[in-house]
Amino acid sequence: MLAFVCSSGQLALRRDYPQPIPQADEVLVRVTLAGICATDLEIVKGYVPDFSGVLGHEFVGVVEKSADSGWLGRRVVASINIGCQTCETCHKSGPEHCPNRRSLGIHRQDGVFAEYVVMPLRNLHYVPDELPDERAIFTEPLAAALRIREQLAIRPSAKTAVIGPGRLGLLVAQVLHLAGEDVTLLGRRSDSLALPASWGLSTGLTTDHADNSFDFVVEVTGNEAGLAEALRLVRPLGNLALKSTFAGGSQVDLTKIVVGEITVTGSRCGPFAPALRLLAESTLHTAPLITAEYPLAEAESAFARAALPGELKVLLRP
Amino acid sequence: MLAFVCSSGQLALRRDYPQPIPQADEVLVRVTLAGICATDLEIVKGYVPDFSGVLGHEFVGVVEKSADSGWLGRRVVASINIGCQTCETCHKSGPEHCPNRRSLGIHRQDGVFAEYVVMPLRNLHYVPDELPDERAIFTEPLAAALRIREQLAIRPSAKTAVIGPGRLGLLVAQVLHLAGEDVTLLGRRSDSLALPASWGLSTGLTTDHADNSFDFVVEVTGNEAGLAEALRLVRPLGNLALKSTFAGGSQVDLTKIVVGEITVTGSRCGPFAPALRLLAESTLHTAPLITAEYPLAEAESAFARAALPGELKVLLRP
Repeated sequence: MLAFVCSSGQLALRRDYPQPIPQADEVLVRVTLAGICATDLEIVKGYVPDFSGVLGHEFVGVVEKSADSGWLGRRVVASINIGCQTCETCHKSGPEHCPNRRSLGIHRQDGVFAEYVVMPLRNLHYVPDELPDERAIFTEPLAAALRIREQLAIRPSAKTAVIGPGRLGLLVAQVLHLAGEDVTLLGRRSDSLALPASWGLSTGLTTDHADNSFDFVVEVTGNEAGLAEALRLVRPLGNLALKSTFAGGSQVDLTKIVVGEITVTGSRCGPFAPALRLLAESTLHTAPLITAEYPLAEAESAFARAALPGELKVLLRP
Repeated sequence: MLAFVCSSGQLALRRDYPQPIPQADEVLVRVTLAGICATDLEIVKGYVPDFSGVLGHEFVGVVEKSADSGWLGRRVVASINIGCQTCETCHKSGPEHCPNRRSLGIHRQDGVFAEYVVMPLRNLHYVPDELPDERAIFTEPLAAALRIREQLAIRPSAKTAVIGPGRLGLLVAQVLHLAGEDVTLLGRRSDSLALPASWGLSTGLTTDHADNSFDFVVEVTGNEAGLAEALRLVRPLGNLALKSTFAGGSQVDLTKIVVGEITVTGSRCGPFAPALRLLAESTLHTAPLITAEYPLAEAESAFARAALPGELKVLLRP
């Protein structure tokens, strides 16, 4: 089958990649649409140096083989972490932090930039009929945005900044705004703020805001400078959520964290059920986030496009 | 009067420093005992580059002038932050994070390494008669240790590490142990662990513990490498409290924070009333923490002694 493969940081389109065969607890899914995420771009840059296999974890597909016939032919999305189901972490808090986990297209498990993918049945979620693929494709990143609300009790009155108006930041800002937060989406260039401003979100340049001017800051910049900006903006006793994952370390002024008694919370994968509910029921903007679509056979061009500054969601259609 | 003064990072013993004159809301305190803290050593290294004045914030003293005669002749300790009392931060959360605050011996306010010091009456706490100066001198650092419990709901069943068996780490480990926590105090050299082991605390070498082996880690090393060690030891979804303040930045692997969804909380000054209660009522070990005492006139020698590796609390007696 056709598959876009990463091996030792080298990308290659393979036409002869073996079609996966589902194990007893797995299903075979025909991928109908996939999305490129910042994490995919970081993996290519070396963020997960030992990854070798099919890239990609954002997808919509149709179940073609399943031991449970009720799933056959159903349109699905799937959570990306596959736990061992035997360790204490799996039992206590699920697969997301299992030390033996595999993750679709990220760690020890082939991903979704291919014609077919296998995964455990337990990872699947039905996509409601009224939700088109082009909207359901945002389930995984929207779940990641919702994760912040799973971790922190965010007061609706908290003056909140989301730094980084990219693929994920635009979803985070919308999710917080939906629930009544006083949210400002901050960026480095005004052209990246035109889209969220057109939706009625408050926006601004990061540099226009004074030190300590927000109660809560979400850092979604995807780059090393983001944490320093976020720390500058959050007030003493404030909260900071970190969403960026990237290769390499970061120089941090710990003094601000300690003297200001800031709480910094890392945030990763989130819940699919509320993400699907929001996509089906709410007025969240997703269509304007899609800036390009390529056939899977042109995955290399799609990756180059997704890496351009200001580019948002680039889709791949097998 | 005699005073130990820091100006542009230069230390000097002054015999002619003007005795302070209390304002209407202030008291004049004769210092009877003072303690050197890691923060004092860091200020000399440049942690607060613009500080100029009498160093020191840990003390016990006797009130000699006060508009409220009830305080005259009373033995006191005092919280170190002096807020403006007019800003929103002062009204909402007290003086510790007031943007206009002064702090005894740290920021815009003469400290306690002197024969006399002035401070607002509202900062004072009585020292119970049964509490000798040599034990009451630990009120401020013990309050800082208790601050962690003010910020975080620490489960008694949480497997907890305190990294850094120094002046403050020895108090933090004792305070957590008192409340039933499964605490291990970790250090880089076994000789620094003999004292807490003699009290019955669990101790160990930091390097002997595997990655991700603690639910909760308190970083009290006072050096840049401490955060990296703490991040290594805390498990995914775990909590990390940071106590170290020092000059300069720190290289941090943000990926562990984000992927492991770690919560990092900075922690600084704490509540005096429970610290005084614990000192008066509990079996906390403090006497073995005092490793030297110098007359104030020998403050330079005392500072050199306090900066030696493994040195604990060095006292100054005016």
